[in-house]
This record gives sequence, C-alpha cells and structure tokens, in this order.
Amino acid sequence: MAIDFPEIGGTQDVFYARPQAVPLPMMARAEGIRFWDEDGKEYIDASSGPMVSALGHGNRNVVAAMTRQTLQLDYAYTQVARSRTNLDYAARLCGMAGAGFERVSFASGGSEAIDNALKFARQYALATNQASRCRIISLNPSYHGATIASLAAGGNDLLQPFFEGFAEAAHAVPAPFTYRLNPGETPESSAAACAQAIEQTIVALGPETVLALLVEPIGGVSTGAVVPPAGFFKAIRATCSRHGVFLIFDEAVCGTGRTGKFFAAHHWPDSRPDIIVQAKGLGAGYAPLGAMFVSATHADTLARLSGFNFSYSYNANPVSCAAGLAVLDEFDRLDLCANATRRGTELRIGLEALKESCPLVGDVRGLGLLLAVELVADKSTKAPLPREFQALNRLRRHALDLGLLVYARETAGGRFGQWFIVAPPLVVTRADIDLILERIARSLNKLAADAAAARLF
Amino acid sequence: MAIDFPEIGGTQDVFYARPQAVPLPMMARAEGIRFWDEDGKEYIDASSGPMVSALGHGNRNVVAAMTRQTLQLDYAYTQVARSRTNLDYAARLCGMAGAGFERVSFASGGSEAIDNALKFARQYALATNQASRCRIISLNPSYHGATIASLAAGGNDLLQPFFEGFAEAAHAVPAPFTYRLNPGETPESSAAACAQAIEQTIVALGPETVLALLVEPIGGVSTGAVVPPAGFFKAIRATCSRHGVFLIFDEAVCGTGRTGKFFAAHHWPDSRPDIIVQAKGLGAGYAPLGAMFVSATHADTLARLSGFNFSYSYNANPVSCAAGLAVLDEFDRLDLCANATRRGTELRIGLEALKESCPLVGDVRGLGLLLAVELVADKSTKAPLPREFQALNRLRRHALDLGLLVYARETAGGRFGQWFIVAPPLVVTRADIDLILERIARSLNKLAADAAAARLF
Repeated sequence: MAIDFPEIGGTQDVFYARPQAVPLPMMARAEGIRFWDEDGKEYIDASSGPMVSALGHGNRNVVAAMTRQTLQLDYAYTQVARSRTNLDYAARLCGMAGAGFERVSFASGGSEAIDNALKFARQYALATNQASRCRIISLNPSYHGATIASLAAGGNDLLQPFFEGFAEAAHAVPAPFTYRLNPGETPESSAAACAQAIEQTIVALGPETVLALLVEPIGGVSTGAVVPPAGFFKAIRATCSRHGVFLIFDEAVCGTGRTGKFFAAHHWPDSRPDIIVQAKGLGAGYAPLGAMFVSATHADTLARLSGFNFSYSYNANPVSCAAGLAVLDEFDRLDLCANATRRGTELRIGLEALKESCPLVGDVRGLGLLLAVELVADKSTKAPLPREFQALNRLRRHALDLGLLVYARETAGGRFGQWFIVAPPLVVTRADIDLILERIARSLNKLAADAAAARLF
Repeated sequence: MAIDFPEIGGTQDVFYARPQAVPLPMMARAEGIRFWDEDGKEYIDASSGPMVSALGHGNRNVVAAMTRQTLQLDYAYTQVARSRTNLDYAARLCGMAGAGFERVSFASGGSEAIDNALKFARQYALATNQASRCRIISLNPSYHGATIASLAAGGNDLLQPFFEGFAEAAHAVPAPFTYRLNPGETPESSAAACAQAIEQTIVALGPETVLALLVEPIGGVSTGAVVPPAGFFKAIRATCSRHGVFLIFDEAVCGTGRTGKFFAAHHWPDSRPDIIVQAKGLGAGYAPLGAMFVSATHADTLARLSGFNFSYSYNANPVSCAAGLAVLDEFDRLDLCANATRRGTELRIGLEALKESCPLVGDVRGLGLLLAVELVADKSTKAPLPREFQALNRLRRHALDLGLLVYARETAGGRFGQWFIVAPPLVVTRADIDLILERIARSLNKLAADAAAARLF
C-alpha cells in the first residue's frame, strides 16, 4: 500500500506503523452502540473502542452534566482550591469500592493513574523507612499503560531494548493462562505456577527490595480476557502480605462494571488488593479519567508523614469529575452491572455456539461483557494461524465491511495467540447482542473462506 | 492545626502533606478571571490556576463547542477510527507551529505529552540504529510533569532517593539564572556556564549515549519565569546538533500564548528545537490536553521504520480536540497573544513599581503574562527570608483574605529563592491588571508587617 503522508498535520494515526493494513473510517457521528462514517456507513462498536465507551455514545445525561459543570465551574486547581464535584465523586466511588478503599486520587486516564499507584507505593516505602523497596513485579504478557513507567511496568519482553538504560523495567513472570497451556498444564496448575513464580521472584530479588506486584486481575489487551481461577488471587494476596509487597490491581479494562461487578476485585472479596486502578469506562469516552483507590490507613499515614503531593494540572478537575458522576448515575439508572452479567451470558452462549460451528474458533473466554475469541488453525492442536496470513487484520477488514468494529490484537509477535475482544457498551440490548453475533459469524465465515483459499485447512 | 480526615473520600488534597498551611476554599462558581466560593467570597485567579486557564472561566464558546462535539461524536479510538476534529485541530496547530513542526501527537495533559516526547526520541533512536542513546539531560531545578518518567526527567535533586532503583533519573546540570547568581556571575555568564555544562555532560557521558536535552525555554514552576538570554538557545541548539541529541522544549507553562507568542520557541527562530510540548493553556482548563510537535521528517521516518505506535485511550479524543479548537478560535477572536504582550507590559510596570516601594521584593522577571516576583529579606545581599517564617504561605493566606489566588512555591527547600508567579488569564483587561496589582501590593504590605513584627528587618 502506498504511504500517503499529509503535508501538515494528519490524524493521530499518521504516527503509527504504515502502511495501515486496515482502513480507518472517518467517523461523523455516534449514538448508542453505533458509529456512522462520513459516507453514512454504519458500524457497531463491538469493543467500546478500547473498552472505554461503557455507556455507548451521545448519552444526553452525561453531556448535560458536563455542560452544566463547565458553565458553573470549569476548573479548580487542587493545590489551591476545592470543588464539591470532586468531593461528591470521591465519596460516591469510595462508597462503591468498600472497605480498604476509602481514598481515591484522580488522573486523566489509566496510564497516569498507574503511575500514581506506583508513585504512591514508592512514596509510602520511603516515608516508612523501606527505601530499598523499589522493584515492580508484573506478568508476561501484561499491559498497564503508555506512559514510560506504565509501559515499563508491563511485562512485554519485546520492549526490553526500548527500556535499556531508559526506564526501569518490571521483573515479569509468566502470566496465568487458561487455554494456551503448556503440555500437562491445567488452568489451575498454570495459575499456581504463576503464583509460585511470583513468590520465588520476590525471594530471589530479596523481599526488602520489592515494592509492588502489579496485575490485571482479568486479562485485558495483552492476554485477551483470561480469568484466572480464584485460587490465584488467594495465593498472590498471601505472598504479597507475607513479604510486605503492595498488591495492585489494574482494572482499567476489567473494571467499571464490565465483568458484572463495578470493581473486578469484588469477585474475590477474600483477596483484597492494596491499590486498585480504574480508568477507561470511568469516563466512558466522555472525559479522560483514571482513579487510584487506596485505604484510609495507607493514604492518611502517608499524608501525615510526607504527603502524596504529586499532582497533575487536570487531576480531579471539575468537568471530568462531573462526567464521572453522571456516568455513575447512568450505571444506577440503567442497572448496568446487572446488564453486563445478563447480556454477557447471552453473548457468551452465542460465541460458544460459534466455537462449535466455526473451524477457526479455538477458545471463548472472559466474564460479563469482557469476552475474547481466540483463533486457531487447528482446534485439536491449538496451532495458531500462520502470521503471514494476517488473520486479525483480515478479520478486522471483513468486520469493517459488515459494519462491525472489533478489537483484535496479538501481543509478543503472536506468541500468546491471536484473539479479538468482544466488549460492547454495557447498554447493549438482547437485539444488539444478536446483531453483533450475526456480524461476527459472517466475518468469521469470510475469514474461514480466506483460510480455505490459502489452503490452511 | 488538627488533622481532620473524612471517613470516606475527600477532595484530592486529602493526599497532600498536612496540616494545610493555607486554607483551600471550596469553589462554587467561576467566570472570567474570578472564582466565588460557597460562602460567596470572590477571588481573582491571578495565576490561571497552575498557568492553565488561559481564557478565564466559563467561556461560552468553548462550552458550546464541547457540547456540540460530545453530542455528535464523543469518542473515536485512534487505532481503529478517525475524527475530522482531530484532523482539523492537528492542521490548525501545525500551521501555527510552522516549519519543523508539521506533526502533532495529542495526549491528556503535559505529563503524558512529555512522556510521548521522550518515547518518540527513544523510539527514533532505536529505529535508526542508535540504541545506545537513552540518557536525558535536563536542568536543576526544572519540572516537567508528574508521571514517573517526567518527574525523573526533572532535575530536582531532593527527589533522587525517590528514583533510586525505581526510575531512570535525568543527568541534570545547573539551570541558568538571572537574579540569584553566583558571585561575579551575570545572566549571560550564568547561561553560558549552563550551556557549557550541557556540552561537557554530553561529552563526559559519551554523545552516543545521550538521547535528549529537555528544557523549559522560559522557567516555569521550578525557577519562576526565568528568561535566559538569546545566546543560551543558540548555544544549546548548536551543542545538540553537533552531538545528534534531540532538543526538546517543554512549553507546558510558557507556551500557548502566555509570553506573547503562541509558541515560546518562536522567540528564538534561529534556535529551533526538535520537539515541542504544549499543554496547560492548550485545553485552558476545559479539557485535559497536551501535545507533542515534531517535524514531518522525524515523524514520517519513524512511521516508515517502526511506527510510533504508543497510544493512550483518550489521545486525540474528539471532545478534547473540539475544546482545543474552540480555544484557538478564542485566541484569534480576542487577539490573546497581543493582549498577553500589552497587559504583560502593564503588569510588569506595576510590579517593578512594587519592587521600588516594597522592601521584600527583590526581583521581577518574566515575559508577557508569565511574570514572577522574588521575595528577599535584604535587597542588597538578596538574602532570602528565613524558611521558618514561611513567607510564601503567609503571602498566600494574606492574598486569599484579600480575594487573590497566587501561585507561590519554592523548590529544593528554598535553595533557589522564594517567589510567586503572576500569570492571570490572557483575557485580562487593563482594569483587571490594576486590581490584581492593588491586591498584590496589599498582600505584600501585610507580609512586610509580619516580617517587621518578626524583627526580620
């Protein structure tokens, strides 16, 4: 494909690797779960963008709340002033988070919030005479954001050359898997091996040097909706407690109701992390918003000792807080956590049926409305499709033709499988689910025809 | 002061060091250059928050543009879709930036944008077989943001223990000063010494290991509006070119028209940096927005080689871009760059007069509407006020009583002086300037009375 750079400017993707394998439609309008491009073509947003648009698009109540707030009090700098919107939003969210999460610090997105979580842990260690605690343990693969530190906290070993001398990379251990397992492994033994590797890594590094274990409790954009067994959380909670290591849950993808509970951590109440990060769905596409939740014990201790004084210009800005509050109102009004469970079950049943009928579907996994479909060339061996076939780009293109936007990605050069996420806005109806399933089925049929034509089976 | 933590939630400052030395009013409303708290008390926003609210508050045109955009197209994920708002905003900004800055990448604030600038430089080095280039050189003091990497890029040596084993800290050289000089120094020799130290540091580290020199061209929140002589920029540009080091201007504070030109870099057209970061005033308090500007040569080369593929969920989101575009429309309609120069001159004349009349004012400096006033106990020796006197907190309290919000800060434990920034919204009128000057004068008189009572002179 010819590379066509504009003389000046260009949309954000002008920076990305080119040529673009899949066209990027110029969107003109969005409402509910749908986009329309400038040619009037309709698309269903089957992944809420990158699991962001929890309420769907053009929500009048959120827009009204933002407009009202901006006209009344657009901005207040948290170092010199307060806003009641910040106060109300914090109380509301901490009330939902429950015991152990009485304090929340805001940021403009998940990456900033992950940076805050790591800074908070580090600042706490310094203030409590544990200055040697500086190392982060994470999973490989994992993804925690796009700031330099949150990228480096992710366990992507292909990025190691990028960090060399430039940033402190995390110490990553193999993530738990449920489908793409080593010979003889089960999901339970895979998770147990991961928990054990975490324990061993802490001991090997020296517990007094380890600051935090950072995990996505349910897989996000790097493993594709892998749900570890409950025993995993008990094990890592015990390990972190034993060694005085902060356990941080990155719920940017799996939080804000997507898996049927507003906080994913609430699925495992006995294995409470020390810090939770929420983002993406929190602002639901209306305002860049991220949040870090910690206990009053940790926060107030640090406030007394040295303070967690770092602030961004836009943290807890009234407009973002107003958007976030209005999003919570919509969650209540529309009972979206329950809808995520109900619609998620329907979606999953439909995807499982596709697994039976489509030769390319090897696995369906996830929880609530965070589901993933893994593609294979051979179901019995789980062999992936050859990389040069570019299955995911083909799938995205077919889906686009059929009016469906899917989130398809492979990490680490496809080493952990090829899959796409199905995670529509939480406002989807039963009829929407049927339509999404139908378009996925047709896209997969086209992909299967491509694969047959390429003599892949 | 007793520490009073709420049971649950709390405004953002609940995390900060306590007890609060200066009350934080709960703001109820803002319009133009004014806030009103919940008791109806009025405050003039003399620093635009942290140099953010360039248009003042409650701008109807910006709000209307945001509302329109949110209803029409609230969100579009840049990895799968485009928006015309992103395209229009990029073209408009790059047109203003001029040759050498044909590409712009957006983020939700300055910290994310600084991370982008450093990632871009690092990615470029890797893609062009210069993997050994990883080190950042910056100035001490300097401040470049609150992500872990942007904090570490700042030259705050008191933060070194925080970074130990946790983040790669920049190699910082003493910043150029214009007032608080070493014996025998002039502003010119101070700047020349800084430029020479940069050259020497690059050579000492090995030029092939140095990635970027990151500077605030005009001092922001760490030096307080220090304007180096033009020769400084020629020298550092030559050094960076000679050694193949990216020269990055952080214009988060001094950009977006605050110094009379929309880009601070345009003050020194012969010393063009390779990358510029703008933030704060770009979204003007209405939307979290940051931007990194690079040349088409750099961006398109990298796009061809590997792509600069990192993205945040909210980068180039349509609502932030619409807010940014509307802010630019207001800059044009109200001729705000010219107003920054005109009002800045009036403000400066007034502050210089205060320097004559007030025994505590040692220096007035800055450019346009980015001005700073440095406090001293003794004008002839430039001796600062004793730290235990807490001059800046006293000043903030007096100003607050008189209805004025000022940005007062000292860095590195006061080692670089005590000052406050006067940087009102760029929409200020002549009458506003007089009112601000009057309230500053009254605040300083109260501070001088405190100092006399404490027998400091």
